[in-house]
Amino acid sequence: MPLMKSWVASANDANHPFPLNNLPYGVFSTEGTEPRCGVAIGDMILDVSAAEAEGLITLGDEPLFDLPFWNPLMEQGPAVWAALRERLTALLAKGSKEQDKVEPLLVPQAEAQLHMPFAVSEYTDFYAGKHHATNVGTMFRGPENALPPNWLHIPIGYNGRASSVVVSGTDIRRPWGQLKSPDHDRPAFLPSRRFDIELEMGAIVGTPSDGPITVQEADDHIFGYVLLNDWSARDIQAWEYQPLGPFQAKATATSISPWIVTKAALDPFRCDTPAREVELLDHLKDCGPMLYDIDLEVTMAPEGKPATTIARTNYKEMYYSSAQQLAHHTTSGCPMNVGDLLGSGTISGPTKDSRGSLLELSWGGKEPITLDTGETRSFIEDGDTLTLKGAARGDGYTIGFGDCTGTVLPALEDPYAR
Amino acid sequence: MPLMKSWVASANDANHPFPLNNLPYGVFSTEGTEPRCGVAIGDMILDVSAAEAEGLITLGDEPLFDLPFWNPLMEQGPAVWAALRERLTALLAKGSKEQDKVEPLLVPQAEAQLHMPFAVSEYTDFYAGKHHATNVGTMFRGPENALPPNWLHIPIGYNGRASSVVVSGTDIRRPWGQLKSPDHDRPAFLPSRRFDIELEMGAIVGTPSDGPITVQEADDHIFGYVLLNDWSARDIQAWEYQPLGPFQAKATATSISPWIVTKAALDPFRCDTPAREVELLDHLKDCGPMLYDIDLEVTMAPEGKPATTIARTNYKEMYYSSAQQLAHHTTSGCPMNVGDLLGSGTISGPTKDSRGSLLELSWGGKEPITLDTGETRSFIEDGDTLTLKGAARGDGYTIGFGDCTGTVLPALEDPYAR
Repeated sequence: MPLMKSWVASANDANHPFPLNNLPYGVFSTEGTEPRCGVAIGDMILDVSAAEAEGLITLGDEPLFDLPFWNPLMEQGPAVWAALRERLTALLAKGSKEQDKVEPLLVPQAEAQLHMPFAVSEYTDFYAGKHHATNVGTMFRGPENALPPNWLHIPIGYNGRASSVVVSGTDIRRPWGQLKSPDHDRPAFLPSRRFDIELEMGAIVGTPSDGPITVQEADDHIFGYVLLNDWSARDIQAWEYQPLGPFQAKATATSISPWIVTKAALDPFRCDTPAREVELLDHLKDCGPMLYDIDLEVTMAPEGKPATTIARTNYKEMYYSSAQQLAHHTTSGCPMNVGDLLGSGTISGPTKDSRGSLLELSWGGKEPITLDTGETRSFIEDGDTLTLKGAARGDGYTIGFGDCTGTVLPALEDPYAR
Repeated sequence: MPLMKSWVASANDANHPFPLNNLPYGVFSTEGTEPRCGVAIGDMILDVSAAEAEGLITLGDEPLFDLPFWNPLMEQGPAVWAALRERLTALLAKGSKEQDKVEPLLVPQAEAQLHMPFAVSEYTDFYAGKHHATNVGTMFRGPENALPPNWLHIPIGYNGRASSVVVSGTDIRRPWGQLKSPDHDRPAFLPSRRFDIELEMGAIVGTPSDGPITVQEADDHIFGYVLLNDWSARDIQAWEYQPLGPFQAKATATSISPWIVTKAALDPFRCDTPAREVELLDHLKDCGPMLYDIDLEVTMAPEGKPATTIARTNYKEMYYSSAQQLAHHTTSGCPMNVGDLLGSGTISGPTKDSRGSLLELSWGGKEPITLDTGETRSFIEDGDTLTLKGAARGDGYTIGFGDCTGTVLPALEDPYAR
């Protein structure tokens, strides 16, 4: 599929993240207005709540867009998702007869503040990248025990904390936590010294379920994708995670990119998961290309200094797709709801410069990385800004996500001072 | 504090679970009516939505009780919680001048169906009973490694799945899951064969927070308690839980008792946590009696047969209080919301007959228990009804919770048949 032309001129650049082919969904406000639903097109945002109010979009009896989240639209199901996309395409395509009515409803992105695009019902994080799991396993348990015995049979996941999911641009406060140095007998309560990122994709559940669903059904239930950074305090994690998994190490914040890129926009970029090393059980088998060819990048910028790209990888490096993860999530009968967010797990590639966490990039701190500024880093330092970028590259167009960024602030001096 | 007398005669029995001293909060409906808020008193339920509509209870400008959950009342904060309790006590006390107005608003419990008493925002489960952790650790890792090194320093917890929390009386469908027998090379997808209970208390967060809070603040933030059964598929858990903790093993269902017993009702039963074996870090130290002396019991009834009590224990056996757990939960800055539910962890006592799970009672299936019917059990069989009971025993009165019960139905023949 080639670039689809829009009458919004900025959307027709081959490298612009938001062409007519994309139409990602966000929540925005401008000075003095309330957050509401919008669609990115080129450098602009179409105020879809205004378009609905003016009768340019009519999808139901109740207003769906004059709200600070896209959940009510998701609840309408796939037929309405398709109808909205078709209508938006018609309104914004070059030659649209309604251009004069739509043009006044565009807001420059430069004047808008972006908010969380949906209400997160529950958040689950997976561990489904083989390079990442092998790297981390090798560091913690040695190369012969790198992958746990279950890893090639199920997409390992754990429940995260929905209340801690924030939109890109939110500052991240370095957490305190209970840590134990190997050279101390007792733990101490201190600010984390090994604060890290995890480069992930997030899949958003758009259709609820109340029992086991197949991989195909799971793919149908996914509404769209965001970039996701699962901030991780490695020193808190190392002390707390046995035997029941990460808890406070992952509860400070998870940042997501501000625009939900729909499954429809990503459809041309579908690709297969890598070859299976052992055959999966039937209920988890691939039934079509359900990963996506999306270039991913992480940059790090010390306070007041330019950014360095510290990793480049691709979503297709994952061993399991989000559809497989969602199918596994329902095997026990677990009810899934509109707005559930599934983190893919850290997306590392096979090479040293394609690793999606500082833990891996600096090999547990033993091999600090050097930034373009000449500074070195093992983990995040106060004032550093970490940014994830994602782009699917089509024939003369790009599907972008908007940056997923966050600046790490120093820990509170006394977390209990009021 | 002695029994407080009510004009509702059944509430004045020393063994009745719902005297005027209790006043627990639930959500009920009767045939042809919508679920709404009610308060248990003796054998009756006071329809507080009707009492509010008639002007007998006025706590704010917006109606708080004509809703199928207590979250809006919780959001009002501790001063309103106290005002409601005071008002309900005045309305229902022997000699109340408003008895004639309140009496028509009583509904017999026998005619009511009970629903989830609150909307669960997020659910966290802990592992904070030392006898349980020691038993399970001994079975899985041997007696010398029974307690992980962190156990005496932090209340170990993991995030659970709020969507799977159901009210007492809901049937529980035996889950399918990925299992691996030690004598097989590969896992299989099968119905769980080691389906189990976990006897727990659940603490309900009533006041939100957005940063670390102290143990005292955490205690202040708790609204009330329920009985909680964290249904657990031990065979799914054994295969999936390394390295990131339980996931589908715990996602089928968690049952809670239908009445929220308020912290105020439990106040006379406060008691200290057991002696510390190692000193806790300051931010987790006890600062008053924050456990409760509550007798707990589990019964098991095969289909169509009488129930056998299979365990008796007490909430005061826990090593950590819910206040300590909530304080720990916030250390990393994790935002907590109204309606968050914290499972205490399995409450086992020191003796064989005080163990809060079948895994412990049957020692991993090696020592099946014998029911009064003569049948034996290692884990739950189809048709079995498991019931948790709880009671705090005061001077001439009892604070009950209402049973937390569930019957296990056979697994679906084919979980993907539609």
